[in-house]
Amino acid sequence: MKIRLFDTTLRDGEQTPGVSLSPPQKVIIAKRLDELGVDVIEAGFPVISAGEAQAVRLISDENLSCEICALARANSKDIDAVSNANLSYVHTFIATSDIHLKYKLKMTREEALIKAIDAVTYAKSLGLKVEFSAEDATRTDREFLNRVFSEVARAGADRIDIPDTVGYSTPQYMADITSDAIQSSGLPVSVHCHNDFGLAVANALAGIQAGAVCAHVTINGIGERAGNASLEELNMALQCLQHDTKYETNINSEMIYETSRFISSMVGITVQPNKAIVGDNAFGHESGIHTHGILNNPLTYEPISPELVGRKRWLKVGKHAGMHGTNAMLAEYGIHPTDEQSQLILSRVKDMGDRGKLVTEVELLSIANDVMDDDSIKDLVKLDGFSVSTGIGTMPYAFVRLNINGKEYSETDFGVGPVDAAFNAIQKITGSTSELLIKDYGLASISGGSQALCEVTVHVADTSGNTISSKTIGKDIVTTSVRAVISGANRLMLKKMTTQEE
Amino acid sequence: MKIRLFDTTLRDGEQTPGVSLSPPQKVIIAKRLDELGVDVIEAGFPVISAGEAQAVRLISDENLSCEICALARANSKDIDAVSNANLSYVHTFIATSDIHLKYKLKMTREEALIKAIDAVTYAKSLGLKVEFSAEDATRTDREFLNRVFSEVARAGADRIDIPDTVGYSTPQYMADITSDAIQSSGLPVSVHCHNDFGLAVANALAGIQAGAVCAHVTINGIGERAGNASLEELNMALQCLQHDTKYETNINSEMIYETSRFISSMVGITVQPNKAIVGDNAFGHESGIHTHGILNNPLTYEPISPELVGRKRWLKVGKHAGMHGTNAMLAEYGIHPTDEQSQLILSRVKDMGDRGKLVTEVELLSIANDVMDDDSIKDLVKLDGFSVSTGIGTMPYAFVRLNINGKEYSETDFGVGPVDAAFNAIQKITGSTSELLIKDYGLASISGGSQALCEVTVHVADTSGNTISSKTIGKDIVTTSVRAVISGANRLMLKKMTTQEE
Repeated sequence: MKIRLFDTTLRDGEQTPGVSLSPPQKVIIAKRLDELGVDVIEAGFPVISAGEAQAVRLISDENLSCEICALARANSKDIDAVSNANLSYVHTFIATSDIHLKYKLKMTREEALIKAIDAVTYAKSLGLKVEFSAEDATRTDREFLNRVFSEVARAGADRIDIPDTVGYSTPQYMADITSDAIQSSGLPVSVHCHNDFGLAVANALAGIQAGAVCAHVTINGIGERAGNASLEELNMALQCLQHDTKYETNINSEMIYETSRFISSMVGITVQPNKAIVGDNAFGHESGIHTHGILNNPLTYEPISPELVGRKRWLKVGKHAGMHGTNAMLAEYGIHPTDEQSQLILSRVKDMGDRGKLVTEVELLSIANDVMDDDSIKDLVKLDGFSVSTGIGTMPYAFVRLNINGKEYSETDFGVGPVDAAFNAIQKITGSTSELLIKDYGLASISGGSQALCEVTVHVADTSGNTISSKTIGKDIVTTSVRAVISGANRLMLKKMTTQEE
Repeated sequence: MKIRLFDTTLRDGEQTPGVSLSPPQKVIIAKRLDELGVDVIEAGFPVISAGEAQAVRLISDENLSCEICALARANSKDIDAVSNANLSYVHTFIATSDIHLKYKLKMTREEALIKAIDAVTYAKSLGLKVEFSAEDATRTDREFLNRVFSEVARAGADRIDIPDTVGYSTPQYMADITSDAIQSSGLPVSVHCHNDFGLAVANALAGIQAGAVCAHVTINGIGERAGNASLEELNMALQCLQHDTKYETNINSEMIYETSRFISSMVGITVQPNKAIVGDNAFGHESGIHTHGILNNPLTYEPISPELVGRKRWLKVGKHAGMHGTNAMLAEYGIHPTDEQSQLILSRVKDMGDRGKLVTEVELLSIANDVMDDDSIKDLVKLDGFSVSTGIGTMPYAFVRLNINGKEYSETDFGVGPVDAAFNAIQKITGSTSELLIKDYGLASISGGSQALCEVTVHVADTSGNTISSKTIGKDIVTTSVRAVISGANRLMLKKMTTQEE
């Protein structure tokens, strides 16, 4: 059965506190969502500001292959704003729960019902397709909710939506009122689930299993408070898990990861490492038992192949490591320790783990180097000198001295920040020698004071398209960033050498 | 009905790739979990390393009020390691799914069953309480799974656990096999749910609704890959949502937020803003409709009161703002614009939002200042000069010149990083004049290159206990951090002045 995904990243997602997108940004995002394969884009809430109305109009002008709709409260001014933005599809809503009626709208149930009917009638008179939402449906009196849905259906609504506005529903209740809504309205039903108790995806799934044909979702689950049902989780749950009915969607799942990263950087809302499908760790493995299983058959510890969502798996070593894992990682660099050496390497990795220390790939290589006394694993690039300054009334500027394969190189440069200045100076050196490119730069910090650790991730690439991701941890943001680049450069050059040898 | 929470933050949580805790860290965390009110702490996997075994023993020595158990594969060596760590409760497991048997264990079903029975028998002979897990239960042949559970129960197991090892189950399937397990074993049943499709909490809830009396959880949902069912989400869903049965747990919910923050900083795994219950935005509001509702009655747009989980709500303004929200925020500073001024302020806030710009509280105050031409809102602390240097072979050091209430102050200091150095210099000045303290420092970056924006959050406090959180965005990590402190200082002093006036 085909399930429609109604993406509200540009409306409910943009209502995430702290997120604000300009009209050109919204257009770029809309194009990406269309490529991803969503069925509907809710482009915004045009009545709230001139820029918002303009953004919706610009998206409509793009003639994307998906449907475009926009939000309107149940009044003619809001609905006109949607129609004036050249759309033919409006998502209109009014709250129906007693708590919203009493404290927010200061209306009786009957007054709200009349406003809902009037809004649908008015929108239909403008020739619009109408999706009607009963805001806070899951805290609305069940009989009244059915009456609202049946009356707006009679007034001409084309689709009905059940918003779990404060994420208060359980999957069972969502299933129950979805069945009710289908019966009372006779229309195609959508569910709009919020994540206040971590149940948004499960609630959306329960609605669909009860007969809803569409779910409102956002990329990375962004939205008001704890956000909305996340597109990537719901889509993969529909496509991959076992259900009584077989579900299909229009989503090109291989584009999910890049879309998630893109949205995260556009809106500035980070994705936690342990987020399903798109988090850094979703396809990462460290413990010995898991790594061993993965090396024999990835399906032992992965429900789906990472390539299905446009990703790659990675392995790490630490105190939970086993020999299969460390040897597999060393083999990637063409390093094959004997059994005895493997034992020694593993015990040193576990020692470091016991002291609360993470063992990065670089450190594993350095341990292997020590144990195997192998000169070829030595660092090719050394950071011999480094200094950076920034402040007010100056551009941040940096000096870097690198020793590459025994030869010294020095450079200076400036940038938008101290890290950028340092990267630019390194780039000047590596660009002219070994053609390394610094591609992506990510920073995560552990809150808790200005002495907290920060974790820097950089992607370093060479001109043949090889890319290495390098992670470093330290207290000085700037020098930690520079060390991450140097360590990435070393591993990339090492990889290149071992590949050429083979 | 009382539901037990079995916390595996120190075992499955610590298996999060990149996380490694030293024995003293594990002891500190165990104490916090005990205070929070968990029923069981799974303290570790003692056989994997000497440090891990030591950590488990140290936790056992603490005589906490909750139960302590540890993990063991189904063999005598692993079980001995648990017993030798002075524990009286073992969590032992063996995989039962065909894919794990074939590719990882290279055993037949019968061989695995015999190992399971032998392990339980052996553990019981040592006088241990035994919880038995059939790893990858949700992908195990259903009939075989029932046979395993019934045989280990006969061998003396005290509790049975159903692990959804790769997060592959739907809530419906979890409910079905939980009912099965209760029937086949006749024992108390736990569920252990992973979050690969975002369904961990829903699956745990479904297991409990089907009769499971215990769920395995972790703080912040950390764990292998996309992690485990999160304690805070499942606990609040059990305590607050409407179920056919009324559920209770031992958790002191008011401690949830501080515990979440503490674990996040100990393990270095960030919590995304839109994480349920504990994310930065879970009780934050920006859009006009929501802010208006919240000001009338918080329950309109919050399913539970933030105080219930030890938090406070906050409001922000942006292009979705309404007049109720901006006026409420200004009123906090004792600023009361006229209706006409309010309109002007709101339209300038929306303009900034349309250009993709976030409006911070400071900027709102500055807009109000312009519109109302009110001198009292002017900045009290100005950053007149600033310079910082770092590198290799030097400590990061900084110079800061502040103008406080018209008087100039200059200071220098060094620190572990450039931000720390700058903070120390500011601290020297503000400590001696107005006694401001810089308490918490958080950093989030938007991946995508060294020119990406970073967002800095600092908490600034005065000696009377007033605290202000200040967020600033910019490209230069160091100067952005310093600006955040200065802006926090200004707001704190302003707040103090308006409070004193009243």
